[in-house]
Amino acid sequence: MKKIFGLVQLNSKLNDKGTNLKKLDSLISKEVKKADLYILPEFFNIGYDLESINNYAENLAEIIPDGETTQEVVRIAKKYNISIVANILEKDPLIIGKYYDTSILIDESGKLLGKYRKIFVFPKEKFRLSEGTSIEIIDWKGIKIGLSICYDHAFPELYRIMALRGAQILIITSAVPKGFEKLVEVRTSARAQDNQLFAIGVNAVGKPSEDSIPFCGNSIAVDPHGDTLIKLGDEEDVIAKVSIDTDKILEERLLEPSLHEIKMLKIYDGIDFRID
Amino acid sequence: MKKIFGLVQLNSKLNDKGTNLKKLDSLISKEVKKADLYILPEFFNIGYDLESINNYAENLAEIIPDGETTQEVVRIAKKYNISIVANILEKDPLIIGKYYDTSILIDESGKLLGKYRKIFVFPKEKFRLSEGTSIEIIDWKGIKIGLSICYDHAFPELYRIMALRGAQILIITSAVPKGFEKLVEVRTSARAQDNQLFAIGVNAVGKPSEDSIPFCGNSIAVDPHGDTLIKLGDEEDVIAKVSIDTDKILEERLLEPSLHEIKMLKIYDGIDFRID
Repeated sequence: MKKIFGLVQLNSKLNDKGTNLKKLDSLISKEVKKADLYILPEFFNIGYDLESINNYAENLAEIIPDGETTQEVVRIAKKYNISIVANILEKDPLIIGKYYDTSILIDESGKLLGKYRKIFVFPKEKFRLSEGTSIEIIDWKGIKIGLSICYDHAFPELYRIMALRGAQILIITSAVPKGFEKLVEVRTSARAQDNQLFAIGVNAVGKPSEDSIPFCGNSIAVDPHGDTLIKLGDEEDVIAKVSIDTDKILEERLLEPSLHEIKMLKIYDGIDFRID
Repeated sequence: MKKIFGLVQLNSKLNDKGTNLKKLDSLISKEVKKADLYILPEFFNIGYDLESINNYAENLAEIIPDGETTQEVVRIAKKYNISIVANILEKDPLIIGKYYDTSILIDESGKLLGKYRKIFVFPKEKFRLSEGTSIEIIDWKGIKIGLSICYDHAFPELYRIMALRGAQILIITSAVPKGFEKLVEVRTSARAQDNQLFAIGVNAVGKPSEDSIPFCGNSIAVDPHGDTLIKLGDEEDVIAKVSIDTDKILEERLLEPSLHEIKMLKIYDGIDFRID
């Protein structure tokens, strides 16, 4: 099955949801041929800035789906008849002071198809962010999409579990700083090739404020053979589109049936694909 | 700790142990500054040729360490005061008709420091080759070396277990055909970067006989950040040397403590690092 994916490489403004959401709307409005699914970087609505999150999480975080960002993403999805993967700072609906780094997938009817809370929270983030405990594979128009976020990409096992559950496209939403371009490339390529499926890494670019760390962009899409389909540099506020044909997955797997043989290691036996 | 590694990219002649061992001796004799450890491709002594192995395994296979290839490698190691990782078709010492794809590590005194039997035997090889069942980490001059062979490289979990057992340098001995250059590069890079250690992939080149499949060379050494230290093309019968400083491992791990956090997935709990 063929679908078009849009990698939205955003330079988000610190804690300015209005500006960031308006920019998203504007960028998509300019697309002559729209992608089927647009993917945004980590904390696209507030910019990724650890100090800010540490100090203002309660104000920046939102309930899903009732918060303003989710609602605005729903509006944009319906307006342009597109699906969107967005990532926001989520407020736990029950426990005060508990936050997650969360991706959502909204379809063109505005329906929330699924939600994934980052499992591998980076050590420095643990002061404010709680760990997700559930791996999410979302059925989107008949294609199985595995969601993940930033530091998650350091853990091939997470993606192997997604592949064993049937994922066809891995989405890695991130805010990787300058100097770590190599990690975006190696990890996205390896996760695709190891599991013989597609992986799309969308990374933040620029910096949210004068004092924030700068992000490296380098958003990338990789095919089941490990070949790069598209790769950005540090261009800001651009959308790169890539056409993906999921039939290529079976083609590659016929060459090497490694997903079958992984059973030999037995480490995934009895894993019910929930971490907790 | 700093050591020099030699990637010996050989074009082996089919079933001609004499010629192949003589070539090895000759190549090393020409080295003005010798490496501490030389690494040879898969079945360097007989050439990798599936048809030939299917038909003549009993004649080609050897007992370790008594067989002629191991004994000749011991002689070369002592002659030049070097260590060698060699890979041969091993004959089971007890069971007739049982063979393994086996790597050995011989030190400069001629001592066999360890032996690894390929765990992930490629489907087409299963007609003749049995699967190894033990992951091997060998202490070589204070450096922990994890041995692996060809198709093994498709399984990040295998290397993760090696890393969790303390491996500092992963050695991937292979015979990857032309057309699959990408796999040698992506997998060697990813195994190094995922585990923040060094990985050296040494691949066969040329073809053992007119009718054999051609190998792609592309031998490569990668550092703990995923950066390529050295990469060959399809040059035949060359030795590329690379200096490795194991101190770089800790440096990279301080940036990201992913090996600690992998415990969250719990899949390695209770793994005693033997497969059977």
